[in-house]
Amino acid sequence: FKQKTAYEISLGLVGSEMCIRDRGYTMSDILQHTIYMDYAATTPVDPVVLEAMSNFFVADYGNPSSMYSLGQEGRKALDEARERIAKVLNSRTGEIVFTSGGTESDNSALLGSALALREHGQHIITSSVEHHAVLHAASLLEELGFEVTYLPVDNNGFINVNTVAESITNNTTVVSVMLANNEVGTIQPVAEIAEIVKSKAQRIGHPIVMHTDAVQAAGFLDLNVQQLGVDMLSLSAHKFHGPKGVGLLFIKRGTPFRPIHVGGSQERDRRAGTENVAGIVGMSVALELSNIQRNELTSHTLALRNKIITSLFERLDGIKLNGPLDFRLPNNVNVSIEGIEAEPLLLGLDLAGIAASSGSACTAASLEPSHVLLAMGLPESVASSSLRLSLGQENTTEEIDYTVNVIVELVNRLRLINNARKVR
Amino acid sequence: FKQKTAYEISLGLVGSEMCIRDRGYTMSDILQHTIYMDYAATTPVDPVVLEAMSNFFVADYGNPSSMYSLGQEGRKALDEARERIAKVLNSRTGEIVFTSGGTESDNSALLGSALALREHGQHIITSSVEHHAVLHAASLLEELGFEVTYLPVDNNGFINVNTVAESITNNTTVVSVMLANNEVGTIQPVAEIAEIVKSKAQRIGHPIVMHTDAVQAAGFLDLNVQQLGVDMLSLSAHKFHGPKGVGLLFIKRGTPFRPIHVGGSQERDRRAGTENVAGIVGMSVALELSNIQRNELTSHTLALRNKIITSLFERLDGIKLNGPLDFRLPNNVNVSIEGIEAEPLLLGLDLAGIAASSGSACTAASLEPSHVLLAMGLPESVASSSLRLSLGQENTTEEIDYTVNVIVELVNRLRLINNARKVR
Repeated sequence: FKQKTAYEISLGLVGSEMCIRDRGYTMSDILQHTIYMDYAATTPVDPVVLEAMSNFFVADYGNPSSMYSLGQEGRKALDEARERIAKVLNSRTGEIVFTSGGTESDNSALLGSALALREHGQHIITSSVEHHAVLHAASLLEELGFEVTYLPVDNNGFINVNTVAESITNNTTVVSVMLANNEVGTIQPVAEIAEIVKSKAQRIGHPIVMHTDAVQAAGFLDLNVQQLGVDMLSLSAHKFHGPKGVGLLFIKRGTPFRPIHVGGSQERDRRAGTENVAGIVGMSVALELSNIQRNELTSHTLALRNKIITSLFERLDGIKLNGPLDFRLPNNVNVSIEGIEAEPLLLGLDLAGIAASSGSACTAASLEPSHVLLAMGLPESVASSSLRLSLGQENTTEEIDYTVNVIVELVNRLRLINNARKVR
Repeated sequence: FKQKTAYEISLGLVGSEMCIRDRGYTMSDILQHTIYMDYAATTPVDPVVLEAMSNFFVADYGNPSSMYSLGQEGRKALDEARERIAKVLNSRTGEIVFTSGGTESDNSALLGSALALREHGQHIITSSVEHHAVLHAASLLEELGFEVTYLPVDNNGFINVNTVAESITNNTTVVSVMLANNEVGTIQPVAEIAEIVKSKAQRIGHPIVMHTDAVQAAGFLDLNVQQLGVDMLSLSAHKFHGPKGVGLLFIKRGTPFRPIHVGGSQERDRRAGTENVAGIVGMSVALELSNIQRNELTSHTLALRNKIITSLFERLDGIKLNGPLDFRLPNNVNVSIEGIEAEPLLLGLDLAGIAASSGSACTAASLEPSHVLLAMGLPESVASSSLRLSLGQENTTEEIDYTVNVIVELVNRLRLINNARKVR
């Protein structure tokens, strides 16, 4: 760990390792058991899920499109997976399309519906706080000649339902609004928006497809597509203890859709490519499990989250909660800490064995201020000092206490260093 | 097995189970050990590969985009996987982009390069015998206003190199020709075509991207991208004993490319989405392994393949080999059998414990005559009577003998039934 220590010293974080030792932890304890507070970035595969997947690598490896018995084992597994998922979503099995993850689901939803409806209009609506998988798909559509409206949000990240209504024109064909934000946890009024979209569509006389990116909501919110009133919904397995590289897109029967992942006739001609049988089986079991544990997980993480927020506010000045207190994912903490840059703070947390992030993992390496926080009206300096802690089933009260202590210690130390620099 | 037997009887295949028993096999022997002759459709994951993957589900589950230690384990695993693959392809590590499989790789290659170069022209060239992942991506481009030339093939499925040269216009921006055909195994002169494309591009004054779909070639042909002279090359892990749901696209440095799988900044902004770490690690180990075993596998399958072809021609009349004898994948047998429909033949083989196909698995369910065989000039009736056997490392001489016996017996029986029907 020499290089780590050197880097630590160069950043003035020499004390952070001490605060581990003070509490009786050694570095190897920590490295063996990371305090994982980045469940929004990804989650470990549940052993039950892995067990369910394991048969489909070596023994039941047949191509589900093949006619013979070995292939039909795979086909049967896919059918069962679809049934498990349809139950959770309250959808028909034929409405579930397996994909390679949340990004593909979002891309396909936007491009697939916009292209299918391009004769009716080339205007789509989304929000300024969507995941980049939606925003960049919208940019691609702009390149192809489409017009995109990016709905603004208020200080807490909420979309105004009236603004949606006002933005819909005769050319609008797609509306995409996320169910819950991945950075600040804001839960959007998707059902209300869907209702407005549907009534507008009826007046206009052509379909407007309503899509929601529910990737971050899974495991915490109800994914009942009937109640949400959406035509499309995206999920990613690795956000709810399933494997990476697999996701799904719910496509309501009758929804205009031009596949963009094209080739073989898998998934009823809506998504080509040999099915990732093991991954799909894993996702279905993970979704079922997470649905069973949803209420328990919600109360567990909510208690821990509130403890973090309360403690940080008690013990630190210049702290700001990003996003609302109500209509927020129960496991999400996102705070900006005055005078503190995210990078050294995250490094200090890492050295103390705590995995956290500044926002979306997908852009973590870029260290640019979050587009979500900027859209919520935060100045750049505040947006770049954000810390996201996202909790999960394995987190404990002891971990929360330890984490709060580490954060407080790091913040105080970093502030001291910053003040010393200013004086010089 | 009552339903199976009933279906078997309805198709006049009652004898097929007998020919298993005659040879001392019982049905449960067969079902426990399928004689798998459909390696072109998919392959079992090698236990070594699965072992390499296993850590990345539960223990090292971090998101590779995350800055903390746990994420960096995943990042390191991705780097190592890229190195393994780059060695096999003789490419730079930065030229490997991980995808969700062959279909995505093909789709991205065509759309990504065509869109990137659309200011220079909107004409792309491909062949009429490509996999649907290429052909349907070409159709999507046609919908977006592009013009597509589909090169014809000769009776053996070969593209004429001169035809490629003649088809290139000032508007051509992409040429996509597969390395080896998935149905008949025809190996295309990709290096020669690439040379022509590059010299034409120089004369025209803008890049023409040369892509090859090498999905079916992996494990058998040299994938050295320098020698092939291609700008892009697609692979799919499950074709060479890696897992399903993961593939790669080689993109030569400097090749114009507009990503179509968009969102986060993974894969140096060329392919968004949380990386399927376990799958990618598995693919890299599988490719390395298959490269080591390539010559051995070639001679093993070549001997078995020739034995099948020779035996079938000796023992059956009205049999036709589809595709060439030279410049053919060593593991591919594709024959048309006069008067025999693929469906009952495949069913009989399945009941005898033999997994085979009529052609591409991706369209197996459709039972339409193969577009490849039609492009090779076969009449519809002959094209719909094709049987593909694709061999692999686990196949034995005993399996070949057994399979030939079963085919001969089934064909004779089906011909008898057909003749009896005609007489009535």
